[in-house]
Amino acid sequence: MKLMKPFGKQFNLTTGVIDGADNHWTRYLKEMRGMYQDREVLNEIMNSDNPLIYEVYEVSVPEEAGQLIQCTSIIYPGKIGKEYYMTKGHYHKKKSCAEVYLCFSGQGYVLLQTEDGECETVEMKKEAFVYVPPYWAHRTINVGKEPLVFTGVYPAEAGHNYGSIEKVGFAKIIVEEQGKPVIKRNPNFKVK
Amino acid sequence: MKLMKPFGKQFNLTTGVIDGADNHWTRYLKEMRGMYQDREVLNEIMNSDNPLIYEVYEVSVPEEAGQLIQCTSIIYPGKIGKEYYMTKGHYHKKKSCAEVYLCFSGQGYVLLQTEDGECETVEMKKEAFVYVPPYWAHRTINVGKEPLVFTGVYPAEAGHNYGSIEKVGFAKIIVEEQGKPVIKRNPNFKVK
Repeated sequence: MKLMKPFGKQFNLTTGVIDGADNHWTRYLKEMRGMYQDREVLNEIMNSDNPLIYEVYEVSVPEEAGQLIQCTSIIYPGKIGKEYYMTKGHYHKKKSCAEVYLCFSGQGYVLLQTEDGECETVEMKKEAFVYVPPYWAHRTINVGKEPLVFTGVYPAEAGHNYGSIEKVGFAKIIVEEQGKPVIKRNPNFKVK
Repeated sequence: MKLMKPFGKQFNLTTGVIDGADNHWTRYLKEMRGMYQDREVLNEIMNSDNPLIYEVYEVSVPEEAGQLIQCTSIIYPGKIGKEYYMTKGHYHKKKSCAEVYLCFSGQGYVLLQTEDGECETVEMKKEAFVYVPPYWAHRTINVGKEPLVFTGVYPAEAGHNYGSIEKVGFAKIIVEEQGKPVIKRNPNFKVK
């Protein structure tokens, strides 16, 4: 059997950048239009701008059972109306796959949801470890004034299922009210 | 199906301590006697002392396919003769399972080895990411003057096989020569 060679890379705890990352994604507001509540503000922003919401650096390995993907996400601070910048959110295609988050800086929440519409939040801040168990969709939200920087590790065979979240959304949203993040029911949420 | 709940914990980037860790191991020299080359120095130290070589904090989850274990290791600075403090080292019982390391502070190496005796080293330092591919035994060595602190993430079904490394050792050792770490052939190494 031909074995894969061990390797090392450097990542930056402050900026989240992985030197020599195999993949680098940027997510601009245009790609997330359907995910924010305040259509009026959304259209107003989109008329003149298309802000970068988050980016991801990934170390890729073969998509085989037993292999692990490491990626670092940087969610920028900002809001669309009252709603904070966040990731698109997804289930794993292979639903039995968990994910581990280690947060290095910033302030936020992981919003998690089962297919039955059960919803949970876990706080993200410097030195937070968050466990995304099998079968839970997960979205991360930056509620602070600095970039939210964290690393995720997950099985390489996990895959991503964005479609179902794009269709039904999350049951909860996190909005700013009187200068503070508040977790509220999503008025547009539909159970599949 | 009864789903596991998401959860969060706090870890310390400087000390490596995970608050509310489910497991905490300490490895003293006594448990690693057979792993160092210089018997004379080893016996001399053991006559009067039994120093703590490293400790591990672990967040445990069910040992099922798809689940992930996170643990943080702290290897203290020190030497037994010329040989630096290090972890015992192991293969995964389920050999196809990889592991991801993120280093937060200190200076060292991961020593990796296949069952055919192929041997590799990858540097560990602040902000190093190291990939331990499937089928490679792995040991971490602190060659610096400060604790070497890093987190490992691996599949919960991986398990540990220490026995085979206890029997045959690693093909290489890392020793201090003229104040610097040098990677050398292990004179006591036996291929299984």
